[in-house]
Amino acid sequence: MDSDQFRAAAHSTIEEIITYFDTLPTQRVLPTIEPGYLRPLIPSQPPAEPEPWSTIQSDIETKIKPGLTHWQHPNFMAFFPAGVTYPSILGEMYSAAFTAPAFNWLCSPACTELETIVMDWLAHALALPPCFLSTSENRGGGVIQVTASDTVATMMIAARERRVTELVLAEGLQPDTVEYEDRMMDIRPRLVALASNQAHSSTAKGALLAGTRFRSVGARLEENLEMTGPRLREMLLQCEKDNLLPYFITLGMGTTNTCAVDRFREVKEVLSERKSWQRIWVHIDAAYAGAALVADEWQYIAGEFAEGVDSFNVNMHKWLLVNFDASCLFIRNRADLTTALDITPAYLRNPYSDSGQVTDYRNWSMSLGRRFRALKIWFVMRSYGLSGMKDYIRRTIALGETFAELIRSRSDLFEIITTPAFGLTVFRIKSPKAAGATMVEGVAQPDEPSNELTKEVYELVNSRGEIFITSTVISGVYAIRVVSANPKAEEKYLRRAFEILVEITGEVLGRE
Amino acid sequence: MDSDQFRAAAHSTIEEIITYFDTLPTQRVLPTIEPGYLRPLIPSQPPAEPEPWSTIQSDIETKIKPGLTHWQHPNFMAFFPAGVTYPSILGEMYSAAFTAPAFNWLCSPACTELETIVMDWLAHALALPPCFLSTSENRGGGVIQVTASDTVATMMIAARERRVTELVLAEGLQPDTVEYEDRMMDIRPRLVALASNQAHSSTAKGALLAGTRFRSVGARLEENLEMTGPRLREMLLQCEKDNLLPYFITLGMGTTNTCAVDRFREVKEVLSERKSWQRIWVHIDAAYAGAALVADEWQYIAGEFAEGVDSFNVNMHKWLLVNFDASCLFIRNRADLTTALDITPAYLRNPYSDSGQVTDYRNWSMSLGRRFRALKIWFVMRSYGLSGMKDYIRRTIALGETFAELIRSRSDLFEIITTPAFGLTVFRIKSPKAAGATMVEGVAQPDEPSNELTKEVYELVNSRGEIFITSTVISGVYAIRVVSANPKAEEKYLRRAFEILVEITGEVLGRE
Repeated sequence: MDSDQFRAAAHSTIEEIITYFDTLPTQRVLPTIEPGYLRPLIPSQPPAEPEPWSTIQSDIETKIKPGLTHWQHPNFMAFFPAGVTYPSILGEMYSAAFTAPAFNWLCSPACTELETIVMDWLAHALALPPCFLSTSENRGGGVIQVTASDTVATMMIAARERRVTELVLAEGLQPDTVEYEDRMMDIRPRLVALASNQAHSSTAKGALLAGTRFRSVGARLEENLEMTGPRLREMLLQCEKDNLLPYFITLGMGTTNTCAVDRFREVKEVLSERKSWQRIWVHIDAAYAGAALVADEWQYIAGEFAEGVDSFNVNMHKWLLVNFDASCLFIRNRADLTTALDITPAYLRNPYSDSGQVTDYRNWSMSLGRRFRALKIWFVMRSYGLSGMKDYIRRTIALGETFAELIRSRSDLFEIITTPAFGLTVFRIKSPKAAGATMVEGVAQPDEPSNELTKEVYELVNSRGEIFITSTVISGVYAIRVVSANPKAEEKYLRRAFEILVEITGEVLGRE
Repeated sequence: MDSDQFRAAAHSTIEEIITYFDTLPTQRVLPTIEPGYLRPLIPSQPPAEPEPWSTIQSDIETKIKPGLTHWQHPNFMAFFPAGVTYPSILGEMYSAAFTAPAFNWLCSPACTELETIVMDWLAHALALPPCFLSTSENRGGGVIQVTASDTVATMMIAARERRVTELVLAEGLQPDTVEYEDRMMDIRPRLVALASNQAHSSTAKGALLAGTRFRSVGARLEENLEMTGPRLREMLLQCEKDNLLPYFITLGMGTTNTCAVDRFREVKEVLSERKSWQRIWVHIDAAYAGAALVADEWQYIAGEFAEGVDSFNVNMHKWLLVNFDASCLFIRNRADLTTALDITPAYLRNPYSDSGQVTDYRNWSMSLGRRFRALKIWFVMRSYGLSGMKDYIRRTIALGETFAELIRSRSDLFEIITTPAFGLTVFRIKSPKAAGATMVEGVAQPDEPSNELTKEVYELVNSRGEIFITSTVISGVYAIRVVSANPKAEEKYLRRAFEILVEITGEVLGRE
């Protein structure tokens, strides 16, 4: 493909992208195809000879789009949003053109330096405490990772190394000896990572990847599924009884099921009670809800991270107008990462890295190479400005409040399970066949008829395909989650979603 | 940014990308900026209000390009190539527009199914044995990972779990009991991963991430730095003496320093000698040189992978015309991965995944979400066809042979250290002050004056900035690596690189 062919192909691609976004609301949000739909449509072998772009491109419309779940659709109300905006797409175009596996400073200084700068911008935008700035005295800083999952796994590996190393050094052993390695290995099996039972599964998976144990701290519906100090203390004492050594904890700002916020202050107080608990790495998973910190009225939460927090993660690719992948990690002490992850063979040595003047982000993550992801973040933050980002967050939170009000307005049909937060409403359908009181002092009680009814309504809503929502099970309560906060979200779509829920509930109840 | 603004911005971006590629040969390959160049050029805070695209875009020329190391430049001869092509950029554009964190089939069926199909295409293109096809009876298949580093770490974690699980189950323990978890933890500290001392550092880093030990098998210059059967057997016996349990080995097809190919047949024979050695996970790291398998004359190598190999990895983003990231992993038994990595909480459950009919790639990697990377691979394979891909590989290998011949033609100045392979030539400058014979029976001997001279020439070449090359140290020999195989590589640039090397060598020698 020469320059002229590329120009024509790219122009045509741009028109198709614009048309895609403009016509999305008229499409079904979920595809109608069945598993295995694509294989019969595509040759089983790659072509022997080149194909023209026109042939390739036409397959997007006929073969790919019919199999897309449209995350940008205003009727996408499932999981969490994962938005994309035009300036973000422009960032990806330049990133692809400037392709470089920028594993150290020398391999693309602009890629490294822009990343440091935009992470500082983001820290300012979120009002994170200064300890997370690259310019902080404590030598903190930000880095763009792929997802919150590999981020938490990376934090756990760094935490594991930090904890084991300090214990082995305290015993007076010398690094690079057989005894040192043996002792490192002896201690690891006792390590245990903690998180609320409401934390995203990535913490349990991270513990698995890091080869350590994992225990979950019970969060309760009567405490709005927030991790509390007393529950954490119980677990820490239990670990002590079991001769386990807690080394890492994930605290949630916006848990996956219900957007609960763990009680940071209480939890940090408990962690300060014993010397060994003070050495636990505290990671804040704010993958989705962290975006709310751009709005002044939420920034008081970030104040909690000034002390007693080792790392903080927010995915701009969820609710902050940058497309996947842009998982932004901030760390208080970057040496915790680089000490754990740096392996520098001869072929990666260069005078800049050796001087210690530059940042080599390969030592901040599991991957060696990395894409130039700072460009899209830079473009989005400049195109929207802080004012545009704040407006977007406030508008979508308001949409969630409107929806929660609608759900509350039909308390004959619906019961809200947890406090609506950050645009998310979690509720169930109340069955007329409920065995007893379904709510006791404002707390939802497990109820089999309501569970069955809610599941039936949920499945019917998705199978009709006009909106896409998700469900979950919390403390024995089957619940529906609705969150509409991608860049195309609008009140009229949420009002229609409410109508659909009322209609289908009526339909299912009528059949019973 | 509305549709019209995006159209104008995107057209302008496309022109800038075309101009970038067309004018690259007239630019310096390495930037001239110093560490920290960018910070004074960019405000320390994000803008409060939106900025127009024209303001943002103009910063690319004035602030970003001056800090780029141009991996697409024909004078980029360092590390390994990391190419990009126009069809690949088009793939990234669609991928950004269709943004979805496609963690399971339902979250974007097209993303999952196209990935399965193009990985099968690639397996065919590389003539991999049928066991690596998604349709194989043994239930193998391919998946796109981010980099070879996270790929090898993921393989090690799966291997660790496979090995420990089979040992614990053999002892009759029941999963999900305290005894089972304790015993899993007891065994892990004895695990050790192996690789040649010439393997990429990602295997050592992977062992660190997986929390296991690592030992390297000595490869020798007199054996062209290939891992041999006898060297491996020595190490396996040593591990036995040390009461360690080898569970994983990386074998290289194209090692980082010299593009050596480990002696697969010998090594596999040694691994078959004992029952416990047969349980070692064998991973082929063909990150760069695996691309050569598209050319028929190299496909005999793939025949070695039909038996005794668990996984194979090639980065299309190095030498196969697709931009970073596109690290393609093939695995013989996908259950080895999904058994180790699957953690399915309620909010990720859905009827399709529960049915087992669909692939959920989140269980094939450390990250939950993933980009739609299959599009760019699909576009590139169709735009080039197999014929175009073979031509590209053959053309760039021939360039390397031409360069090696030039180096050989000046045996008064240069000594080739290892057999030139896959476009890479590794050589040193012979010092007239060498203490004794620098080559003995064709094998380079460590020589301090030659090391110093080679280092001086190397540093001067890069500081002049016309070409960019890398150096390494092998068995005490300081050497220069030259590989020119990105899509813009041409013979005239390699001939000029040779002239520069001769000139600068003369200059340095003249000063002495």
